[in-house]
Amino acid sequence: VVVEVYEQLTAEGWLVSRAGSGTSVAARPPAGSEPAAARPSEPPRLAALDLRPARPDVTAFPRTDWVAATRRVLADLPHEDLSYGDQRGHPRARAIVAAYLARVRGVRTSPDRTLLTEGFSAGLSAVAATLATLGVARLGVEDPGGYEPRGVAAAAGLAPVPIPVDDQGLRVDVLERSDVRAVMVTPAHQYPLGAVLSPERRHQLVAWARATDGWIIEDDYDAEFRYDRAPVGAVQALAPDRTIHLGSVGKTLAPAIRVGWAVVPAALLEPVVTTRHVRASQPATLDHLVVAQLIDEGRYDRHLRGLRRRYRTRRDLVLEVLAEAGLADRVSGIAAGLHAVVRTHDPDDAALADTLCDRGVQAVALGRYAMESDARGLVLGYAQPTTSQLRAALEVIADVLTTG
Amino acid sequence: VVVEVYEQLTAEGWLVSRAGSGTSVAARPPAGSEPAAARPSEPPRLAALDLRPARPDVTAFPRTDWVAATRRVLADLPHEDLSYGDQRGHPRARAIVAAYLARVRGVRTSPDRTLLTEGFSAGLSAVAATLATLGVARLGVEDPGGYEPRGVAAAAGLAPVPIPVDDQGLRVDVLERSDVRAVMVTPAHQYPLGAVLSPERRHQLVAWARATDGWIIEDDYDAEFRYDRAPVGAVQALAPDRTIHLGSVGKTLAPAIRVGWAVVPAALLEPVVTTRHVRASQPATLDHLVVAQLIDEGRYDRHLRGLRRRYRTRRDLVLEVLAEAGLADRVSGIAAGLHAVVRTHDPDDAALADTLCDRGVQAVALGRYAMESDARGLVLGYAQPTTSQLRAALEVIADVLTTG
Repeated sequence: VVVEVYEQLTAEGWLVSRAGSGTSVAARPPAGSEPAAARPSEPPRLAALDLRPARPDVTAFPRTDWVAATRRVLADLPHEDLSYGDQRGHPRARAIVAAYLARVRGVRTSPDRTLLTEGFSAGLSAVAATLATLGVARLGVEDPGGYEPRGVAAAAGLAPVPIPVDDQGLRVDVLERSDVRAVMVTPAHQYPLGAVLSPERRHQLVAWARATDGWIIEDDYDAEFRYDRAPVGAVQALAPDRTIHLGSVGKTLAPAIRVGWAVVPAALLEPVVTTRHVRASQPATLDHLVVAQLIDEGRYDRHLRGLRRRYRTRRDLVLEVLAEAGLADRVSGIAAGLHAVVRTHDPDDAALADTLCDRGVQAVALGRYAMESDARGLVLGYAQPTTSQLRAALEVIADVLTTG
Repeated sequence: VVVEVYEQLTAEGWLVSRAGSGTSVAARPPAGSEPAAARPSEPPRLAALDLRPARPDVTAFPRTDWVAATRRVLADLPHEDLSYGDQRGHPRARAIVAAYLARVRGVRTSPDRTLLTEGFSAGLSAVAATLATLGVARLGVEDPGGYEPRGVAAAAGLAPVPIPVDDQGLRVDVLERSDVRAVMVTPAHQYPLGAVLSPERRHQLVAWARATDGWIIEDDYDAEFRYDRAPVGAVQALAPDRTIHLGSVGKTLAPAIRVGWAVVPAALLEPVVTTRHVRASQPATLDHLVVAQLIDEGRYDRHLRGLRRRYRTRRDLVLEVLAEAGLADRVSGIAAGLHAVVRTHDPDDAALADTLCDRGVQAVALGRYAMESDARGLVLGYAQPTTSQLRAALEVIADVLTTG
């Protein structure tokens, strides 16, 4: 299993195998990697105009609110709450997060089954390792889909099995014909193509889970950001007993804040808590309570409203510049989220990304997200750059795509 | 491996196997468990006077300093430092922690090889998993020794092999006769018996590591607290290329703050970073910087001086009450740390701990820490209770030990 994991990571660019000198972390991580796998002391080559997706605008981080919430939490917190406590996280923080997920995402849960984690991937790692101890060996993953979650699940013991996606999201019919018993999906905004999992597919997915005793891992990674469509609730609400719902504040507050949640079915609660315990994942009580305080005071919602306005403006700019270049019909996935996808005809999108890098723009080839899929193009994160950086980058991209 | 881990955890009381109904987290965790393995919704039975070891006095947590340091960090932090960064932790935080460890513990390191983690156990879990990927299958552990670290290492793939300890610490001669290639030690204050690893043993241990290409995992768990003996430096300083030095602020600040460090030999740096990456252990940048700020401003040292005075007073009280009861010659391990050990003649120290629990005192049977060792007695944590609670508990203990 370990060898497979290393092979997988090597294949995906995380690791570099050098003949005779062992394996090391790649000097330049796969472009667009969410958490950068920096090789110690050698920063990755990175173009100046950084359009890697899944990177939020951290200039919006509510610094003053964070300090104030920290002060308020510490003003009232009983001493004993600073010691070792419930493995799932502080009860007050769990209650507030559970209520938030119910209100905003329609998640059906209770504080009992809402675990606080160190982020989406940490929750995924624990859930995948738990499913592995329960005999699950393979995990259906969207193709194209996030390579980072694939790598985390693989390292935890679940071999990824590609399931194609189309404009309705995951091809559940293909899933049904596979023999996998667990699947990871991004129903709110398929990563990276951007489809919303359609109502029919949602019901079909839930029926699959019930018929096979299968598990659905719901990655709700950017559900907070939608611009011109109705809100779409969590799949978890349709099958709370078969769905693990994962989220975090990494993209809403900042990656530097390691707080996430895992809503787990009652049947998985004790195994997941045990997995986290033996892997020494102790709850970061103070961080959890500060995030809960921000939610409870309405400051988190206010922050999200501000972000949504900011991101919508940038999203509009992406559409505008690419439309001016005659590329409008190639753009997709822009009703929500922090990135857009531009399809290309050139099958070698990696070369295209390299060309852009040479011209100062860091975008990610869509092919990087593919396992068997032949979808090719560019994934453009628009949340992080300033408006002027974004415009400059988009003009380079338009130029390369229309003349190259 | 997974079955072995579960068996190990079951044997140590973390899990309960019920015939026909699967495995669940124990309703009552092993008494004295550092992080409580709470079964969801059923708090463990716990006596009112809690003398479980390894629990710090969280009433001393520097709340005002924490808020002020958070404010100062956020006042100056460049925006981009809130995004994904170096997997090892923020460079400034690593530099400050590395300098602190050099100054206070004599650790020979550089910021490059000083990784910031979520605590001692999280560092151990990553290091153990890394050694497992490098072909290490067994880990020498002190006997008696901490069962929590044993469990974490076992879950990461290293089967624990008991190595006895005596009043000089680890019996390195026994280690030499074993075939293990890695060993975990508590040189500053053997847990739980309290010996300092003697200079001769240190040199013998380092010679073993060099001769066998072995790895030393140094658990520096309470090196900050010594009362009437000269400071003892880290073993790491004698063999930086063979020693992994692990520590955290869990016992100096509070368990609710998840910040620790792992100083790793250059040869292990990339593998450990990779392990942490694929297990989704992203650095909690803000927490790391706040701790670094407290260190840099001298507030951490001041806090430790206050704690030392506080704990010394309680340690003196333990000695005083037990001496009054004629038990002075049975007490050991009190020159440092947060707990004392009282040896007993009764081989059934678990029954003794139960008797104490019935009388309102939560202490931990020394036998719980034993694998093959026949050391029996009581481990008494004195850091957490108030002085009056501590006196009341000690009087019950003295009564039970002298009349029971």
